[in-house]
Amino acid sequence: MDYRALEALVAVLECRGFERAAQRLNVSQSAVSQRIRQLEFRLGQPVLLRTSPPRLTDLGQRLTNHLQQVQQLEQGLLLPQESAESVKIRLAVNADTLDTWLAPALLRCDDYVQMDFDFVVEDQDVGLKRMRNGEVMACICATAAPVNGGLSQPLGVMRYRALASPEFIQRHQLKRNQQHIAQVPCLIFSGDDRLQHRFLQSVSPEHAEPQRTHQCPSSGGFVRMALAGIGYGMIPQVQVAEHIKSGELRDVVPGYHLDVPLYWHYWQTESSLLKSLRSAVVAEAKKILLPLKR
Amino acid sequence: MDYRALEALVAVLECRGFERAAQRLNVSQSAVSQRIRQLEFRLGQPVLLRTSPPRLTDLGQRLTNHLQQVQQLEQGLLLPQESAESVKIRLAVNADTLDTWLAPALLRCDDYVQMDFDFVVEDQDVGLKRMRNGEVMACICATAAPVNGGLSQPLGVMRYRALASPEFIQRHQLKRNQQHIAQVPCLIFSGDDRLQHRFLQSVSPEHAEPQRTHQCPSSGGFVRMALAGIGYGMIPQVQVAEHIKSGELRDVVPGYHLDVPLYWHYWQTESSLLKSLRSAVVAEAKKILLPLKR
Repeated sequence: MDYRALEALVAVLECRGFERAAQRLNVSQSAVSQRIRQLEFRLGQPVLLRTSPPRLTDLGQRLTNHLQQVQQLEQGLLLPQESAESVKIRLAVNADTLDTWLAPALLRCDDYVQMDFDFVVEDQDVGLKRMRNGEVMACICATAAPVNGGLSQPLGVMRYRALASPEFIQRHQLKRNQQHIAQVPCLIFSGDDRLQHRFLQSVSPEHAEPQRTHQCPSSGGFVRMALAGIGYGMIPQVQVAEHIKSGELRDVVPGYHLDVPLYWHYWQTESSLLKSLRSAVVAEAKKILLPLKR
Repeated sequence: MDYRALEALVAVLECRGFERAAQRLNVSQSAVSQRIRQLEFRLGQPVLLRTSPPRLTDLGQRLTNHLQQVQQLEQGLLLPQESAESVKIRLAVNADTLDTWLAPALLRCDDYVQMDFDFVVEDQDVGLKRMRNGEVMACICATAAPVNGGLSQPLGVMRYRALASPEFIQRHQLKRNQQHIAQVPCLIFSGDDRLQHRFLQSVSPEHAEPQRTHQCPSSGGFVRMALAGIGYGMIPQVQVAEHIKSGELRDVVPGYHLDVPLYWHYWQTESSLLKSLRSAVVAEAKKILLPLKR
């Protein structure tokens, strides 16, 4: 196996193009192309679709996935105390986790001082594709089923509530009547975020598509937009417990909530460093998240 | 001028590819390609570089920029009260602004109930390229000089301080000695974020490249990582005033700060709706940001 070619393949994927991949690897763009072409020639089939951004073929996915596992094994060769260098830990994580309970979870891990984190923010419903592609060492997302070569461990449930400011609820007369809820301005995080659609599906199945949306791709900004009365949105209870208590945010449909399960995905070849990180994250999640019902 | 082709061009740019642009426009991928090819044929030169993601040529930039101005004029055709429809307002904004003072600023605008916001988060040093490309109606960024066809108005200064938890400062013995500051774990928001480099350049010019970084592309997550003692980072004073007051966050180099000026960029053809939004944002910025020194 030509590991230099596999590294080039991952770089093209992560950098979303040949030019920036070449910059990262500190080689010429034609060197990157050539490594990948030679790999394809030897394997007799393409590993990369030259779309924009480039995408992996099935074979390409199996190769990058394999590389990630090999790198984990390499990490395990040296014990933490034998290695003076810090280790780059690339994690795919949903924005709400990064904005709430992840930092104290990392701190629980004795070995964290050796880790240099690189968080990739992905919606909880799509984060696993980063894992499947072998781009990350671990992933927190809403899917239970592990990827090829991987395992998953349940973390718990993040409870979302459809929240808005009292002024917003009054202005749109949502207390009396919720039939027009699909017409009311709705906050969405990104195009991948379906939580508001799931809320509408459940409370107003005949009009499940929000008619007016504000797209706000920042977890903190999302909360501020809700507090200011710009729109309503699905917000993790744990993120705004204080604002719910003080009455600054109220349920649009009292009693409604949506539970999103979260899982830690890791590789079967997990290094001891990643194992210690996983234990820390699982322990903190137990404290913060609700238990997962089977 | 073929406006359908210009719309296809903007869609390819915004969606970072032909396939998703076709989905958004609800036409086939070949229809998108064909519109752009015909435009290029008539103009006698390329408008789009087929890189991944695709990039505009100089001519392409002038065309999309022109389209944005025409769309603003179209918005101005109808007075707010004549139009029953809400208006999509696409704004490029830096993450720290979105996470702090933008929501109350929007609320100051009487016409905001008619606006559907779509925020595009970009680092303050690169947001203007979205404006130059004609992808957004307005932009908040650190650059004063307006783009072609645009104007800019100063908003004020966002003051950043290099902050960390007291435990972090003690663990790395930063009180006694700051010579090793470049070796200490440093939070960065993204590859575009140069604030920490500018800090190091100023306090340790001979070692201005951080040796260990944690990349955390979330403004709220960034603050939590600093609070947890994972790293130090440049944080807007206005975002963490409470944490500074309580002593949970302290200056790594007491007395140091970095002032980032912010400007509102808009089109010369500004619609009355956008003008009312600009006044609201300028008024709130005056309250929250520090005055800009000339």
